[in-house]
Amino acid sequence: MTESTRIWTAALIVIGDEILSGRTQDKNIAQVATWLGVQGIRLREVRVVPDVMEAIVEAVNALRVRNDYLFTTGGIGPTHDDITVDAVAEALGVPVVVHPRARAILEDYYTTRGGLTEARLRMARVPEGADLIENRLSGAPGIRAGNIFLMAGVPSITAQMLDGLTGKLEGGLPLLSETIGCWVGESEIADLLRETETTFAGVQIGSYPFFREGRTGANFVIRATDADLLGACARALSEGLATLGREPVPGGI
Amino acid sequence: MTESTRIWTAALIVIGDEILSGRTQDKNIAQVATWLGVQGIRLREVRVVPDVMEAIVEAVNALRVRNDYLFTTGGIGPTHDDITVDAVAEALGVPVVVHPRARAILEDYYTTRGGLTEARLRMARVPEGADLIENRLSGAPGIRAGNIFLMAGVPSITAQMLDGLTGKLEGGLPLLSETIGCWVGESEIADLLRETETTFAGVQIGSYPFFREGRTGANFVIRATDADLLGACARALSEGLATLGREPVPGGI
Repeated sequence: MTESTRIWTAALIVIGDEILSGRTQDKNIAQVATWLGVQGIRLREVRVVPDVMEAIVEAVNALRVRNDYLFTTGGIGPTHDDITVDAVAEALGVPVVVHPRARAILEDYYTTRGGLTEARLRMARVPEGADLIENRLSGAPGIRAGNIFLMAGVPSITAQMLDGLTGKLEGGLPLLSETIGCWVGESEIADLLRETETTFAGVQIGSYPFFREGRTGANFVIRATDADLLGACARALSEGLATLGREPVPGGI
Repeated sequence: MTESTRIWTAALIVIGDEILSGRTQDKNIAQVATWLGVQGIRLREVRVVPDVMEAIVEAVNALRVRNDYLFTTGGIGPTHDDITVDAVAEALGVPVVVHPRARAILEDYYTTRGGLTEARLRMARVPEGADLIENRLSGAPGIRAGNIFLMAGVPSITAQMLDGLTGKLEGGLPLLSETIGCWVGESEIADLLRETETTFAGVQIGSYPFFREGRTGANFVIRATDADLLGACARALSEGLATLGREPVPGGI
């Protein structure tokens, strides 16, 4: 496999009881997924696990080996329920240490904010051997331990950390996509979708139905790494819909 | 363990490339989690997997055994990328069959909508031995196969299917919660949180920080199955915050 066709993959572990209780609507899955796509890395699997040591360790060990990169969000703050660093260290079989640069960053940040307490110093703890992912918003840095990236749970802070990583991870060709919408029941054009996908090898077509304004419609998302192939497949699908008397809506509905 | 203290657990598998690409913001995790909470069932783990047979089979087999219930969302429509029924059947080691009642429901529904085509008939396929979860919105039913519940990917249809299941699954005591907000950096009250949780055995306290209006705040979510214990813990935490000169905001910020 040449470098240009190698597929780079990532997994994400969302850590937090607040997502599993339904109290908080997760925003990090879509945010991390979108960012990874731009880096040419495909998100292959997500797990949402509670703030429980064994659950985090199990997920880290299952996913770090079979993906190029593993991201986690949540559980790196200063309170008792923030156990992600400890869990990742346990998964890697290394001790937790205070990172000198993280400590310096926090000391600086908290100089005018009441000083570096023991609770705040928790945010300087990293699995031994880890590097930092700096973030300008809250002082506390994210952490890179091998191929594992520990990010914040608060989406705006995660965004800062992702921004700091942009362009720094090796990836492959980004997966391009084109969307065609249509006011049609997806069951009416299932054959067309299947035949079109078969005709254009290397393309995937996803069908996403919806109900809106009292009508049935669907968006068809075509994905490929080759722009020409993508364009040809989108044209063929649009023509197929028109032939069936259904108007294709470029860009989706 | 008496019946009243038995904890009932569930897992959820969200199936769909559209979530993993970041194109679609998932809404089913929070919806299913909230609904389960009301039934007295705790959501313990969520996995988001692509529309790939082996990935779905692996997740189904990992999660169905270690939870009382397993829910899936997505992949039960009429198109080529809808392979959830086949994957669950493979995981259970049973063939896929056409369910007579599902076929009758679809025939009836499509009588005035162009008739039951081969693609639409796909939505009557179930793992052998499965029952239906009826839904008034789209005709196509959800499926119950043993302790596995196959639901739609479209959140409004999933909501209908959940509604049809309300009160029908055995559960335990619902996990109650009370939220106290405070304009405080969580690192300032980390000790208070830890001590309060330790004092009230059987209670969990989650700390969820945020930045809003240029200020740092956090919501503290206290969870317990015993209402009296929950109330006592909430009062203690509020008093603790007040003692530190921080105003507790009942209900959260």
